[in-house]
Amino acid sequence: MSKVEVSFTPENYHVYENLDNIVVVTDILRATSAICTALHHGAREVIPVSTVEEARFYKSKGYLVGAERNGVQLEEFDFGNSPYSYMNELEDRSVVLTTTNGTKAINMAKNSFQVVVGAFTNFTALANWLSQQERDILILCSGWKGRYNLEDTLFAGALTERLEQMGTVSLTEDSALSAKYLYNLAKDDPYKFLMNSSHRRRLKKLNLKEDIRYCLSMDNTEIIPVLHEGSLVPMNDQVLEELRLAAETAED
Amino acid sequence: MSKVEVSFTPENYHVYENLDNIVVVTDILRATSAICTALHHGAREVIPVSTVEEARFYKSKGYLVGAERNGVQLEEFDFGNSPYSYMNELEDRSVVLTTTNGTKAINMAKNSFQVVVGAFTNFTALANWLSQQERDILILCSGWKGRYNLEDTLFAGALTERLEQMGTVSLTEDSALSAKYLYNLAKDDPYKFLMNSSHRRRLKKLNLKEDIRYCLSMDNTEIIPVLHEGSLVPMNDQVLEELRLAAETAED
Repeated sequence: MSKVEVSFTPENYHVYENLDNIVVVTDILRATSAICTALHHGAREVIPVSTVEEARFYKSKGYLVGAERNGVQLEEFDFGNSPYSYMNELEDRSVVLTTTNGTKAINMAKNSFQVVVGAFTNFTALANWLSQQERDILILCSGWKGRYNLEDTLFAGALTERLEQMGTVSLTEDSALSAKYLYNLAKDDPYKFLMNSSHRRRLKKLNLKEDIRYCLSMDNTEIIPVLHEGSLVPMNDQVLEELRLAAETAED
Repeated sequence: MSKVEVSFTPENYHVYENLDNIVVVTDILRATSAICTALHHGAREVIPVSTVEEARFYKSKGYLVGAERNGVQLEEFDFGNSPYSYMNELEDRSVVLTTTNGTKAINMAKNSFQVVVGAFTNFTALANWLSQQERDILILCSGWKGRYNLEDTLFAGALTERLEQMGTVSLTEDSALSAKYLYNLAKDDPYKFLMNSSHRRRLKKLNLKEDIRYCLSMDNTEIIPVLHEGSLVPMNDQVLEELRLAAETAED
């Protein structure tokens, strides 16, 4: 039986870090939801970068670049982090993305056994894959500027509950228990539950209702983005084999 | 209206740190419960130290010293962190305490406007005092070796709910909302709720049932330990006046 833990913010990651873990990074509003959307709509890869400077470098090289800070798109770039902007004209393109929280969390976890991207939009595909791995799982919530947030916790709780139901994990850790309890309070209407949180104010202001509804919708895609040589690519057998070989080489 | 936030672990403290805040440090099992008990039973002060080396130094100077690591008392010292060991022969004594989590959290917050110690055992006295301060409040959970834990979160949720009921704070922060939601799931029987957590295993093993029941009991004391020149002392008008003068001097 595997273990599942939740790091509620990137600030806690180093405590939970284990290089044998699979890390599921989530940033429901909106980075990881957008990444799933981009790959579902044909992008070849999403390159997560932590700084605006790196994003600017890629932009100068001709890449499509999304850049968000404090919930809004930076003007000089092609996209922000709204999933709706990642639905067209991405076929076989490389997309670079930097966001306030999510892309930093992804890069933070890069030395773990595998880094996958989780969202409600790829929920069941991700849970099914995780249930076959027989590895401990860390769900890394991106939070908001180092602070705890409810929407990432809800995702962590939903995934924890599903993995428990599938018999994949035993719930021994307070973080995972707490996330599951919270999800159970919210699951009848996660949208309403979230609107009763601090994001209500922040997100209503940014007119993100449609984005929020999309980011809370389940199972729009089968794609599981996995980190491979610094890029998030759709998981498939070939990518997994290359990751397996790279891990073996690193051990030698 | 004041704001209340919760830092679920010391690892997150720097994100929430604000030198104008009142910080309520809690380590329900068992450091802050034991500190309240010691002062209630007549100790003049409890000096929180972060390392065993500091504790050893004080011991060599003749102080009464409590030292706990991983839930058990270190043999060379007078006490562990069981509240029951702080009920006798403390009249007017100085006690030094180092614990795995709680005393480090207390020292971490020492530069904030005021640091007070919270537990279920001094719950109502603390809430009543906080409600009169008109300052933002950070509840700093000590956690377990940097990890999230349920019992400190329950305390944070209980305090948040009480302050909201008293009209002291408006709940705008996800961390405080989440703690309150969790407390509401637990409050009919916090002991049972906690026994269904990871601590069940850790704490059953250590035969701490009596300690846990005591640490979850409400309002055994009116004492509010407050940090004053490196010592936790019972709050009173004179101490508050000295703290106020010290803060003014620091501003000049």
